[in-house]
Amino acid sequence: MTVADLLDRARNAKVMIATAESCTGGMVVAALTDIPGSSDVVERGFITYTNQAKQDMLGVRAQTLDTFGAVSEQVAREMADGALAHAPVQLAVSITGIAGPGGSEFKPEGRVCFGLAQIGADTRTETIDFGALGRDNVRRAARDHALALLDTALS
Amino acid sequence: MTVADLLDRARNAKVMIATAESCTGGMVVAALTDIPGSSDVVERGFITYTNQAKQDMLGVRAQTLDTFGAVSEQVAREMADGALAHAPVQLAVSITGIAGPGGSEFKPEGRVCFGLAQIGADTRTETIDFGALGRDNVRRAARDHALALLDTALS
Repeated sequence: MTVADLLDRARNAKVMIATAESCTGGMVVAALTDIPGSSDVVERGFITYTNQAKQDMLGVRAQTLDTFGAVSEQVAREMADGALAHAPVQLAVSITGIAGPGGSEFKPEGRVCFGLAQIGADTRTETIDFGALGRDNVRRAARDHALALLDTALS
Repeated sequence: MTVADLLDRARNAKVMIATAESCTGGMVVAALTDIPGSSDVVERGFITYTNQAKQDMLGVRAQTLDTFGAVSEQVAREMADGALAHAPVQLAVSITGIAGPGGSEFKPEGRVCFGLAQIGADTRTETIDFGALGRDNVRRAARDHALALLDTALS
């Protein structure tokens, strides 16, 4: 899978994409826009680093954040659904995790939750424990997994 | 200037930061969040790749886009001001440019416009013609210049 192929598939399917990113902090949308011509596929990115931003930009509920924590499949689901609802796109991926160093919220370093929302399909969520690979490696692994999820949705 | 120093200065000044990015596609907020502990300084990023996103997320006016084009100091100003208005931050940087390959809107490849908005100060804008360095190099140069603008604002 290359990002250029992913964009071609989206372009052929007339699918526009948005990202909703927390721990990757824009790395997914930056990777998508690395490719010339990405502007006819990549619509926008919501980089919601704080809980307030997740609520304001994506409509994540305070109760969901309080009950499950920011790094949870429940929040990943609301982030992906919120991106689909708040942007003129057909496909959105969300990423929220603990890049480290150190864990938090009684969750381990390297845990990342993903959401994939698509018009006409049920929203999917997933948790991966990448482990304590170090901040850079966790972020890169999360970026690559998010790109793979988008690719799968388009295949 | 290192990003870690920039974040320390913002932290000490109790300044939260947002980015409003077009051609850099999230590279500035990704660089800011590379650093552990960035979550107490980096609030959110608005990655407004399309004109629609610039209008929806940042309140850029259609008339400004029509009159001056997306790559203009006028749009960069409205993007930076919009980030300050739409996020609980004290400092925002905006980036809109032509990463290439090829120019557009009768503007040359490598032209990037920046905005810097800060509570209690006039918004500043700037245009740099980085030249036809290639997409990756233009995007990296624009990212680094945006980080330098944030650093200057905090010095």
